[in-house]
Amino acid sequence: MNILVLHGPNLHLLGRRQPEVYGHQTLQDINKALDEFVASSPHDVVLKILQSNHEGEIVSIIGDHIDWADGILINPAAYTHTSIAIRDALATVAIPTVEIHLSNIYAREEFRHHSHISGVAAGVVSGFGAYSYILALEAMIHILGPKTTET
Amino acid sequence: MNILVLHGPNLHLLGRRQPEVYGHQTLQDINKALDEFVASSPHDVVLKILQSNHEGEIVSIIGDHIDWADGILINPAAYTHTSIAIRDALATVAIPTVEIHLSNIYAREEFRHHSHISGVAAGVVSGFGAYSYILALEAMIHILGPKTTET
Amino acid sequence: MNILVLHGPNLHLLGRRQPEVYGHQTLQDINKALDEFVASSPHDVVLKILQSNHEGEIVSIIGDHIDWADGILINPAAYTHTSIAIRDALATVAIPTVEIHLSNIYAREEFRHHSHISGVAAGVVSGFGAYSYILALEAMIHILGPKTTET
Amino acid sequence: MNILVLHGPNLHLLGRRQPEVYGHQTLQDINKALDEFVASSPHDVVLKILQSNHEGEIVSIIGDHIDWADGILINPAAYTHTSIAIRDALATVAIPTVEIHLSNIYAREEFRHHSHISGVAAGVVSGFGAYSYILALEAMIHILGPKTTET
Amino acid sequence: MNILVLHGPNLHLLGRRQPEVYGHQTLQDINKALDEFVASSPHDVVLKILQSNHEGEIVSIIGDHIDWADGILINPAAYTHTSIAIRDALATVAIPTVEIHLSNIYAREEFRHHSHISGVAAGVVSGFGAYSYILALEAMIHILGPKTTET
Amino acid sequence: MNILVLHGPNLHLLGRRQPEVYGHQTLQDINKALDEFVASSPHDVVLKILQSNHEGEIVSIIGDHIDWADGILINPAAYTHTSIAIRDALATVAIPTVEIHLSNIYAREEFRHHSHISGVAAGVVSGFGAYSYILALEAMIHILGPKTTET
Amino acid sequence: MNILVLHGPNLHLLGRRQPEVYGHQTLQDINKALDEFVASSPHDVVLKILQSNHEGEIVSIIGDHIDWADGILINPAAYTHTSIAIRDALATVAIPTVEIHLSNIYAREEFRHHSHISGVAAGVVSGFGAYSYILALEAMIHILGPKTTET
Amino acid sequence: MNILVLHGPNLHLLGRRQPEVYGHQTLQDINKALDEFVASSPHDVVLKILQSNHEGEIVSIIGDHIDWADGILINPAAYTHTSIAIRDALATVAIPTVEIHLSNIYAREEFRHHSHISGVAAGVVSGFGAYSYILALEAMIHILGPKTTET
Amino acid sequence: MNILVLHGPNLHLLGRRQPEVYGHQTLQDINKALDEFVASSPHDVVLKILQSNHEGEIVSIIGDHIDWADGILINPAAYTHTSIAIRDALATVAIPTVEIHLSNIYAREEFRHHSHISGVAAGVVSGFGAYSYILALEAMIHILGPKTTET
Amino acid sequence: MNILVLHGPNLHLLGRRQPEVYGHQTLQDINKALDEFVASSPHDVVLKILQSNHEGEIVSIIGDHIDWADGILINPAAYTHTSIAIRDALATVAIPTVEIHLSNIYAREEFRHHSHISGVAAGVVSGFGAYSYILALEAMIHILGPKTTET
Amino acid sequence: MNILVLHGPNLHLLGRRQPEVYGHQTLQDINKALDEFVASSPHDVVLKILQSNHEGEIVSIIGDHIDWADGILINPAAYTHTSIAIRDALATVAIPTVEIHLSNIYAREEFRHHSHISGVAAGVVSGFGAYSYILALEAMIHILGPKTTET
Amino acid sequence: MNILVLHGPNLHLLGRRQPEVYGHQTLQDINKALDEFVASSPHDVVLKILQSNHEGEIVSIIGDHIDWADGILINPAAYTHTSIAIRDALATVAIPTVEIHLSNIYAREEFRHHSHISGVAAGVVSGFGAYSYILALEAMIHILGPKTTET
Repeated sequence: MNILVLHGPNLHLLGRRQPEVYGHQTLQDINKALDEFVASSPHDVVLKILQSNHEGEIVSIIGDHIDWADGILINPAAYTHTSIAIRDALATVAIPTVEIHLSNIYAREEFRHHSHISGVAAGVVSGFGAYSYILALEAMIHILGPKTTET
Repeated sequence: MNILVLHGPNLHLLGRRQPEVYGHQTLQDINKALDEFVASSPHDVVLKILQSNHEGEIVSIIGDHIDWADGILINPAAYTHTSIAIRDALATVAIPTVEIHLSNIYAREEFRHHSHISGVAAGVVSGFGAYSYILALEAMIHILGPKTTET
Repeated sequence: MNILVLHGPNLHLLGRRQPEVYGHQTLQDINKALDEFVASSPHDVVLKILQSNHEGEIVSIIGDHIDWADGILINPAAYTHTSIAIRDALATVAIPTVEIHLSNIYAREEFRHHSHISGVAAGVVSGFGAYSYILALEAMIHILGPKTTET
Repeated sequence: MNILVLHGPNLHLLGRRQPEVYGHQTLQDINKALDEFVASSPHDVVLKILQSNHEGEIVSIIGDHIDWADGILINPAAYTHTSIAIRDALATVAIPTVEIHLSNIYAREEFRHHSHISGVAAGVVSGFGAYSYILALEAMIHILGPKTTET
Repeated sequence: MNILVLHGPNLHLLGRRQPEVYGHQTLQDINKALDEFVASSPHDVVLKILQSNHEGEIVSIIGDHIDWADGILINPAAYTHTSIAIRDALATVAIPTVEIHLSNIYAREEFRHHSHISGVAAGVVSGFGAYSYILALEAMIHILGPKTTET
Repeated sequence: MNILVLHGPNLHLLGRRQPEVYGHQTLQDINKALDEFVASSPHDVVLKILQSNHEGEIVSIIGDHIDWADGILINPAAYTHTSIAIRDALATVAIPTVEIHLSNIYAREEFRHHSHISGVAAGVVSGFGAYSYILALEAMIHILGPKTTET
Repeated sequence: MNILVLHGPNLHLLGRRQPEVYGHQTLQDINKALDEFVASSPHDVVLKILQSNHEGEIVSIIGDHIDWADGILINPAAYTHTSIAIRDALATVAIPTVEIHLSNIYAREEFRHHSHISGVAAGVVSGFGAYSYILALEAMIHILGPKTTET
Repeated sequence: MNILVLHGPNLHLLGRRQPEVYGHQTLQDINKALDEFVASSPHDVVLKILQSNHEGEIVSIIGDHIDWADGILINPAAYTHTSIAIRDALATVAIPTVEIHLSNIYAREEFRHHSHISGVAAGVVSGFGAYSYILALEAMIHILGPKTTET
Repeated sequence: MNILVLHGPNLHLLGRRQPEVYGHQTLQDINKALDEFVASSPHDVVLKILQSNHEGEIVSIIGDHIDWADGILINPAAYTHTSIAIRDALATVAIPTVEIHLSNIYAREEFRHHSHISGVAAGVVSGFGAYSYILALEAMIHILGPKTTET
Repeated sequence: MNILVLHGPNLHLLGRRQPEVYGHQTLQDINKALDEFVASSPHDVVLKILQSNHEGEIVSIIGDHIDWADGILINPAAYTHTSIAIRDALATVAIPTVEIHLSNIYAREEFRHHSHISGVAAGVVSGFGAYSYILALEAMIHILGPKTTET
Repeated sequence: MNILVLHGPNLHLLGRRQPEVYGHQTLQDINKALDEFVASSPHDVVLKILQSNHEGEIVSIIGDHIDWADGILINPAAYTHTSIAIRDALATVAIPTVEIHLSNIYAREEFRHHSHISGVAAGVVSGFGAYSYILALEAMIHILGPKTTET
Repeated sequence: MNILVLHGPNLHLLGRRQPEVYGHQTLQDINKALDEFVASSPHDVVLKILQSNHEGEIVSIIGDHIDWADGILINPAAYTHTSIAIRDALATVAIPTVEIHLSNIYAREEFRHHSHISGVAAGVVSGFGAYSYILALEAMIHILGPKTTET
């Protein structure tokens, strides 16, 4: 299982940003936790983790992995609410995608309640801080895994 | 950790209902999976699982467990979009709550995009079928667990 | 043909309620007229008639008759405009349904113009007082009857 | 009882038009069924059946029958949603009117949910295909008939 | 004067619920204050006090008292904003009604600003905590009392 | 307790104005009733009663009493729906305020349903005619009174 | 001065139509009053008066008089609110136009408040019954007359 | 016939203000034209002409003339769109009112399309510059005049 | 290839109408250009060109050509924004349709931005003046032509 | 350079009003700072500073200074959001105007985001407390000053 | 004639993306067809074809060609609906622009119906697949060509 | 004081772009004026001036200066209205920011009235052309300067 993990804009500053909303962990902490989870997993998972502040670059990255990735984990951050281009990129490659948010976007400002991405995502994990990533990774492994052991 | 699991209206018919949207599992299958997860968990978790078609009954159940429950997992189903009473019940008891949806409500009809519940929930898990419940349970254990091992 | 007739909230008071809007007939009068129509009908029709003020109870009744009913006649009354749960119950059992209104809801207050139920109903009869039920019953017999004699 | 039956725009093509929505019957089939119903009715009913694609012509027809018609059955088709002129014509002649739709307009596209006509109609029958006309005719006879034998 | 006092959903938890919004008094305290007020009143007032979390039950209670109650005091709580069924019940029994809110709902979240109930109420008292009930009771006695001594 | 009573625009014509909406009492009747209530009250209350048709004058009056008034009773009449300036004046002086309406504004035209004032008021009394003022005065005395005897 | 007077849909029934809204005069009465006004006028005015129920015919009439008419008086009736085609016709011929309404459309149903025509009219006269036409004719003569004697 | 003529805010500057919108005439010119029209009229008309920039003052003026005025001509200018107080004043005195606008407000900015005043006016004259006043005066005389000679 | 070309309302006045928006060419010029294009085309194309100001007539024309036309070019002009009847006619005949606009409707007034027609058209050409027709004709030939030479 | 400085409603209470929003400075402090700035300025500036709580008075003041003022600095406070009359007054006198806000209105309540004034102002300074006035004065001097030294 | 052809985000994946919407041709196929068209054209046309997934890069490209390009063909893809920056870039360079869409965006999801680009484009070609580019190129040559041979 | 000056998309073309809106100055002129202002200032200010057309690049620049900048001056240009990512970047670094606009965006097209940036800015300067930058720089120095000399 090849899984592309995409961190959207401003996430490289995690840990410095409004800690009451996003917590104290850094993006490195999250990436390390993802790697450790994979290392201890019984599944054969390969992660590729990228961060970009550019809408267009995220679009390009998604397109570039059309033949590599079996699944995509994306935290679109602010582009959640404004980017139809990323939505179209995900629809184009047609790879199962899980949308991640550190905070519960539906309990924040009105303008964060609508997501352009959700319409093409398999599911959404929102509001558990860094742990959202672990849950999303589990969800993705579950989606890609053998269907016989569904729970 | 005492965790109340609340299934909302029509979920007792799960497995008979639009399988292209909700899958073939029954509510009993989901409950069994939750029990098994708890049995194999290193944490000391007690589950209490209830289903109701009545908005008022769900309100009563939440109030009745104000002293028992440490966490609430709720799939409010159709009441997600119409019940301020359930929202108020959750706000009243002030117990950490995770909102669950089998399907990705944000990718369905317009009138399913807004949730009255999310504003008082710690987080939302939506779109992973029966597995949404397992992820939500993990999230709840994480929320209630010792904070030193966050990731 | 087994047909479930569901009267929604406040209809038990029919005849006492705003007669300029709803007429002078009682619910018993309507039920009697339905029974008489069936008695004089050449079709083999069994009616089961229930009334409830509870949204949740209506949801339960619909689910309980998933294997019995061939058709459902429902006057959702006030829940027409507020209940997604009843809509979901009807969608779950997937039994042909006719929506009934005593008054012409489209000619009344703005908030009565939208129906959550119509989207899952086969058709709607609205505005003919108690006679709306007879027309709806005819329509249901037509829907369930042999297709060769359509008109 | 003189009853004017008005078919709105595009209905002359019925049977050739999107059969998955409107069925295979032609307008001639519907008119024949109405005539047969009247012929076998114990009531003294005279039907006059007209079709027009012109909003203005429909307005004129309604006005021209101000002294002849005791009741009007109208399927305004697309003009349902755009014509205040037809609404005003019906309000002007003040003749009891039943609004008819072949398909259940409330379960179709958003722009078909609102009717300018319903506000001046006695009632609405929507969604039973050609049989909607028969039900509407029964309703009209009921409205115009002796009030002592209601239901 | 027979006066029905109806407490809506979640009010049984009063005193445990967000005290910064609703104060520290319990429902028992409010009921006791109402009883004491009546006991010391020169008017012959009989109170019947009920609480329910169920929309349908509130509808039933209102209908059941159609011949008993001369006035209704109702705090519809969350159902204020979502229940047309309770509105219809009050319109059906046509008994003078005063709407009560502990908090000033017009100064809270946007979704609490609109009331389905106000359109059928004689008046509204909102924002004085438990004392809102006493004021509403006074208002009701004033409404039901002899008209010669107005003010 | 110094209490400022403010009557808004057009209230000087009370008794001449749409009696089916506002009743037959004049503003002098209301003021007399308030004075009598105070005279017979065990509390030491001083009333100052003013009427103005000018939004700006009402703003000025509020500001001028910043050091005198312990409470404000205001019937903003038409300015309820259009004046942010009066709202700001009340927020500036930060004196407890009760908003009064003779008629039940929530049951009248749509444009009377929203109040700019409610957001800065302690509470609202609406719909009891002249008696609304007495109830509001009681509420204000309750708010300003000793907290030990709350009921 | 050649002035085209256009009566819109349903106006041929004037006098038979809701007299509480439109009065008892017929269209012939109005036309006669216009002719008499012109006969007694010091100005050299030629009137051409037409009525049509057809939006398209009204469009054609306007276009056909592009070289004849110096001014247009139009009562678009129901087409006021729905016809962009008539608006475009008036904009195309670029002849000064006065919009007329018998009733005060701004004081009636919400859907009659907006006019597609006003944006291309010189002015509007609304609410004076048949006399609206006389006022509009005076206004048109004023617009077309010598500018030196304004007022 | 006593007729009150009310000029709203900024009209005292007429002639200095955006002449491309409002023309070159001053308020004195308009008042003179009104006086001349009355002088040459066969009717016994007394005009009282006032101008005010104050919403509250306009409210007071209207109330002060409750026993004097038989009709009111008002150009509410900017208050057309923002003043419910003036609307209420006109509704209170219940004197026939004609609303006047120099420019065609329905052809200007969106925020000038809605009038709070029209709902309580007998009729509206809009768009004929200073001549709008003469037409409105004629309309008022027509409204107040003997009904036998209606044209 | 039989192609029906339909010109909507007011287009018969082309060349006389707002030349800064629509240019100086007449409808005859456009028709001549279309004929010349066909004459010089290697394809076997038959054009039938009609103009109508009537919505109903356009509906009829479309229906009348259900068996003749292989493609339809339509400039619905003002009916673009108001006619669901024309939309339904095009949907009924199910003939490939290209929507044409002389001006760029998306860059004009807000009320011209929405088209009822586009939803049932194969494509849209908007904004190139008379040349829009030539482009649309090319597009139609392309749509109807052999698929092997797609470019 | 003659510059009129207009302080809107409630600003006379500055320093007493919500200090967390508006700061501790009084209006006298602001006026003194403006005077000092002018005294030390190389430009020949005359300030006239007025405050009013009356919308109508502000309209009058603006009109009264049509020949005196070269520039206007206005903090319309609450009237920013409700007064078209002040907008019209500024448009009438056509004097360059700078709109001032102490707080950043765009970051406060929704109803403070829209300004009727901005559409006729040269520019806006918002959010710097009392210093907003100094910046606005600098801006005005810049606007009125010689254009050769623009930076 | 120098013509810049700009392909927006995700178009580099053409042929792999939802073929039921976008067809099977690749971007290379489209570019080849454009080149061939130019080669066989009697006009002296130079094409420069670029693709970018970056909103900012598209903005830069447009600015960089301010002196080179005589016309711009742009398929903004997803940025059609979200980019004011590209709109501003096109407005800045003021070069005639044709907007292109492969699919008929007006017949797809609601959020694709609005274009920020159309307001600054000369025209739009939408819905003819790859052939849209050829039509747009023809339109551009027509726009830039000699005006004497307009057809 | 280290101050980052950020020019958004299309500003590199300043002086070539719609001069009636943005004036004739180039970005170099503005930068030079800022440098000169700093050189003549008594404060120790270091400016770093950057321009970018890329939303993502602007996000990156802001993040990269988290430890260097004491203040940020940003003219987000078109991204003002569409970029939540830039808003989040500014919120993340939590550096005092002043938002700058050359033109008065609140007086331009509707879609330019809303700013995503204002909610996280200390203040806004809008509408003074190039001078807006100087005012904003002064404001920033004021914000960062010693608080004892506030004026």
